[in-house]
Amino acid sequence: MFLINGQFNEILSIQDRGLHYGDGVFETIAIQDERPLCWDKHISRLNLGCRCLGFNCPAEELLQYEANQLCANTQRGVLKIILTRGQGGRGYKPPESRGMPTRILANYPWPDFPEANAIHGVKIKICNTRLGRNSQLAGIKHLNRLEQVLARSEWDTEDIAEGLMLDTEGNVIEGTMSNLFIAHGDKLLTPDLTYCGIAGIIRQSILALAPEFGMQIGVMPITQNELYAADEIFLCNSVIGIWPVRQLVDHYYEPGLWAARIRGQLIKQGVIAA
Amino acid sequence: MFLINGQFNEILSIQDRGLHYGDGVFETIAIQDERPLCWDKHISRLNLGCRCLGFNCPAEELLQYEANQLCANTQRGVLKIILTRGQGGRGYKPPESRGMPTRILANYPWPDFPEANAIHGVKIKICNTRLGRNSQLAGIKHLNRLEQVLARSEWDTEDIAEGLMLDTEGNVIEGTMSNLFIAHGDKLLTPDLTYCGIAGIIRQSILALAPEFGMQIGVMPITQNELYAADEIFLCNSVIGIWPVRQLVDHYYEPGLWAARIRGQLIKQGVIAA
Repeated sequence: MFLINGQFNEILSIQDRGLHYGDGVFETIAIQDERPLCWDKHISRLNLGCRCLGFNCPAEELLQYEANQLCANTQRGVLKIILTRGQGGRGYKPPESRGMPTRILANYPWPDFPEANAIHGVKIKICNTRLGRNSQLAGIKHLNRLEQVLARSEWDTEDIAEGLMLDTEGNVIEGTMSNLFIAHGDKLLTPDLTYCGIAGIIRQSILALAPEFGMQIGVMPITQNELYAADEIFLCNSVIGIWPVRQLVDHYYEPGLWAARIRGQLIKQGVIAA
Repeated sequence: MFLINGQFNEILSIQDRGLHYGDGVFETIAIQDERPLCWDKHISRLNLGCRCLGFNCPAEELLQYEANQLCANTQRGVLKIILTRGQGGRGYKPPESRGMPTRILANYPWPDFPEANAIHGVKIKICNTRLGRNSQLAGIKHLNRLEQVLARSEWDTEDIAEGLMLDTEGNVIEGTMSNLFIAHGDKLLTPDLTYCGIAGIIRQSILALAPEFGMQIGVMPITQNELYAADEIFLCNSVIGIWPVRQLVDHYYEPGLWAARIRGQLIKQGVIAA
């Protein structure tokens, strides 16, 4: 089900700059009991993204009204919001009127990931496709996602749940659809996203939460070797919640204690779906 | 005028992966006397791009048939072809059927660039927006074009015709919509595009042509200083043809001899519009 500029519809103008240049941003939001989770944080990131690309984010009230329409009667689902700069002629130059971004809201079924992923952990791989570095676009969830598409094309077997991506310098950055944490003693580390990667909402919630558990937080460059040396590794995003990593290539991890504790707390706070 | 999968239409499915991820490639082709110029080269690059992204390029005959429909009665115009991976659900993973890319052909009016640009040259700037480096996506004309959009947003005065973009390492790569050549004695240099940039059709034609003029060709990293030290600089693409650079920031160049000779030859060969 799709709401395009407030109308139930499934078609878009061929002149939309979202198609021509990926000129826009998006959010992927868990719906639970007819409500989008972490709404405020998703809206903040949309605003940040629009500011970064230089177009006006629609009013929160409007997005909230439309999201409510789409979430009604959905106990469990995924709300995707896409905002583009709107229609334009040929050429990269943004149109002079900064008035009319396109807003697209979609209600998708909850994905059928195995429930065991969150409890027993997942097997992951390291992708060959690298992330280019450009601090101007790092962090925001824009529509230029070919690197993720190519990385996700690298495997087609159900036993692999996610692929980690390195940047062109060899730093570990994130999964194709998730952020990454590694635990090492009482330290919880996550890659620095100054040059590439998407700064996820759940990542942000975990960073805010960890000190309550007496964990020292580190946001820093992370090498492949540090992955193998870690006590535990886990992945997060708004839909999967938290997945501990059981196996990375030929390296095995014990089911993670920190992943389980943090996951429990995020569920209790209503940040991720149970 | 738009032809979408063979139908005259102006709307696209909201589920197209071109919108969601920029998952596709495009070409911008000059139309002259009802004919797309350099057709074979544009088709080759589309094929290369589709291969790089891992989906099937539609048959040339089909694209040719549709291009002919759109070019009929157009003496001078711009044909844009967009190919996307087609429709798909949520998630980066490409759908399993590799069958049905979306093809979009559009006939746009010829842009109203001043005719003097090609003769007397243009004033250009250097953009602050940088190009990220990723050899896997370099060269092809894919739909992830936010860097170009942001760079082209940096100026809004008509006296500046183009902006040059550096990569994140500081190498000069290209204009927001054009490739770059610099002439130095009998040497004609153009930036190496191994890590970023679009390998343009006119650039390719110039590289093939230059030895006929007794010029030594160099495809190599180019620094900002080399721009200022050059005898002449010119820009090229399929629509503008060749524009000599008259002024770069506060540096002035004489009207370029090589630019004029190469432009004359490309017009004679039917590579660019007169």
